[in-house]
Amino acid sequence: MVSSALAPLPISGVRLAVVCAGIKYPDRRDLVLIALDEGTRCAAVFMRNAFCAAPVIVAREHLGLADPRFLVINSGNANAGMGRRGLNDARATCAAVASLMGCSVEGVLPFSTGVIGEALPVDRLIGALPDAKAALDSEGWGNAALGIMTTDTRPKFASRRVDIDGNVFTVTGIAKGAGMIRPDMATMLAFIATDAAVDRTSLQLCLDSVVRESFNAISVDGDTSTNDACVLLATGKSGARFDHAGAAFSHFVDTVQEICIELAQAIVRDGEGATKFVTVQVAGGADTQECREVADTIAHSPLVKTALFASDPNWGRILAAVGRAGIQDLVVERVTINLDEVCVVRNGERAEGYDEASGQSVMERDQITIRVELGRGPAEASIWTTDLSLDYVRINAEYRS
Amino acid sequence: MVSSALAPLPISGVRLAVVCAGIKYPDRRDLVLIALDEGTRCAAVFMRNAFCAAPVIVAREHLGLADPRFLVINSGNANAGMGRRGLNDARATCAAVASLMGCSVEGVLPFSTGVIGEALPVDRLIGALPDAKAALDSEGWGNAALGIMTTDTRPKFASRRVDIDGNVFTVTGIAKGAGMIRPDMATMLAFIATDAAVDRTSLQLCLDSVVRESFNAISVDGDTSTNDACVLLATGKSGARFDHAGAAFSHFVDTVQEICIELAQAIVRDGEGATKFVTVQVAGGADTQECREVADTIAHSPLVKTALFASDPNWGRILAAVGRAGIQDLVVERVTINLDEVCVVRNGERAEGYDEASGQSVMERDQITIRVELGRGPAEASIWTTDLSLDYVRINAEYRS
Repeated sequence: MVSSALAPLPISGVRLAVVCAGIKYPDRRDLVLIALDEGTRCAAVFMRNAFCAAPVIVAREHLGLADPRFLVINSGNANAGMGRRGLNDARATCAAVASLMGCSVEGVLPFSTGVIGEALPVDRLIGALPDAKAALDSEGWGNAALGIMTTDTRPKFASRRVDIDGNVFTVTGIAKGAGMIRPDMATMLAFIATDAAVDRTSLQLCLDSVVRESFNAISVDGDTSTNDACVLLATGKSGARFDHAGAAFSHFVDTVQEICIELAQAIVRDGEGATKFVTVQVAGGADTQECREVADTIAHSPLVKTALFASDPNWGRILAAVGRAGIQDLVVERVTINLDEVCVVRNGERAEGYDEASGQSVMERDQITIRVELGRGPAEASIWTTDLSLDYVRINAEYRS
Repeated sequence: MVSSALAPLPISGVRLAVVCAGIKYPDRRDLVLIALDEGTRCAAVFMRNAFCAAPVIVAREHLGLADPRFLVINSGNANAGMGRRGLNDARATCAAVASLMGCSVEGVLPFSTGVIGEALPVDRLIGALPDAKAALDSEGWGNAALGIMTTDTRPKFASRRVDIDGNVFTVTGIAKGAGMIRPDMATMLAFIATDAAVDRTSLQLCLDSVVRESFNAISVDGDTSTNDACVLLATGKSGARFDHAGAAFSHFVDTVQEICIELAQAIVRDGEGATKFVTVQVAGGADTQECREVADTIAHSPLVKTALFASDPNWGRILAAVGRAGIQDLVVERVTINLDEVCVVRNGERAEGYDEASGQSVMERDQITIRVELGRGPAEASIWTTDLSLDYVRINAEYRS
């Protein structure tokens, strides 16, 4: 039995606070503190950009040394591209939390999101920590979702309470991200917690598998950032217990995956300037990798994305994207393309009986599935993406100024 | 001695005509016929999209069988994605030219550019051929450059007359292309002719090397199309003679390369909605390939491109693009980034003494060089590209409608 929630459900063992630290703007909630009860286990996935932001370096380091007791997250400044000073600022932040809260420095994980290349106003950040301590609250998830936003237009959270044969547990997650989104993590932060008891190895196995099917399957503009992270926490307070050897583990993974897919899709729906939610499904591939590459090429094509924005059934642009995705021995005569229920290309050419009006009627929807069949094998892959709108350019040309 | 020309110089042995065939719009010059004297040699490079347009398939076939005597080029319709019908239409076009002009069908090469997935109005095309025959003129290069345009806003041509130790020859080229431009050919057609005598093998060697440094080093939006081609013709009328074993061959290649770079840069300058001409130079790589990949990642980043449009010195976006270009063992502490003469990143972090005002003043220019030093070796590569503007989205959302 699964029940999903309109408001984020609290997780026993997790308290959250958000305050205004004046990181970039005055009076904007930009500092989140998350307190974890002792015994909480943690798994994390970080982005793969060679330029790691300072907090990512420090968080990785600390995770190798201890279970975290506090997460400290600021928006408005990425603390990236700042060299030694950035590292010092991230360490100073952790030290301040540790001293205020009475834990080891290694027990604090720092996260930052925002503009690259500007010094973190670490004094203001540290100055706001006592207020954050005072505001810690197990009901703080909704506000925390607000506090980690940058160009997001709305907070993103998801929650489920699950009962598996009397084992009751809850999973709640929050995420931020609206641009710079693509496979392999982007300007994206996600924090997911459960009150189930899960050992560290099982938790990491769960997260690795789940991220592949959720946050790594979305794309807004093909850019990735220097600060992305996804964290999964298990406080063990509910009595439910899972490990990867157990039969019920897959139920736990499925629940976390539902949460992560919901958060990932919310990021796409909030894609900068997005007017459509587009699923690109590629089936009939020889392996998953080539399906991914075709889906990726379609999802990143500015010409496909502007046609989506214009509600123009310009399937030639999709065909051209399939053709340049780099599949060596593609038999174009086997390729089929559907826009929702309308088949536009069959056997590599315009489908017999297809008319522009039916393509147009699909393209006018605000949720569209582009389905490509390659006719080469049994593999499939999906990516969720958006159109490329005038507002995308406006937002990204004006951000910072 | 080299003299370049403001108007395209005629090439002895080449005559051109352009007429209105009503391919897509009435009264638009959309059909170009190029007549070549007997003895003209031809080399060609075609795009690498798995979905080959019908004219590309037919042109390749014919090139394998005979030296061309006529090129027939229509704009307004790509004759792509039309299966057997498209092939029949391309063959019918060649047959009509052959019959009208009295040559073999294999002596005709067809080219099409425009919308994918609509039937070529082959009757109207063939109906306009007699007018084209009557209009053939060695001074027709400028009009031909107009006739092959689609979303281009201006015709593109380049011309040089060269005297190498008394060996005088001329090279003239025309090109079309404004969107769908990227390495490995795009919606781009280029026709270059010389009156020098060059054998087929040498001509192909020349073209392969030249395309790598010109048309394959430009990028507007990362998309490629199904119809791209670059053709190099040598009529042998001038008396100058080159072959790849000869000492003077490199002079010939250099001249063709200058023409092709000029045409390639003209395509970028006419990039859909482009407001800036941007050179991305990557130096200090272990090999050319990795320099290309970094340049490519920067040139295709929508975030870098929108920052360029906004004249915003948001070097963090360039840094993030370098970081995700996939260089395995990149030492970020060795990376330097310049915007023209202003160093913004040194040793992987914001350059000491850099201030936003100096970055801003560079970004406001309409020609900008982004130079990245990787600190790994002696290799270099450059790509020419543009910004991503509101007009790019407008043009590509409205094209076809």
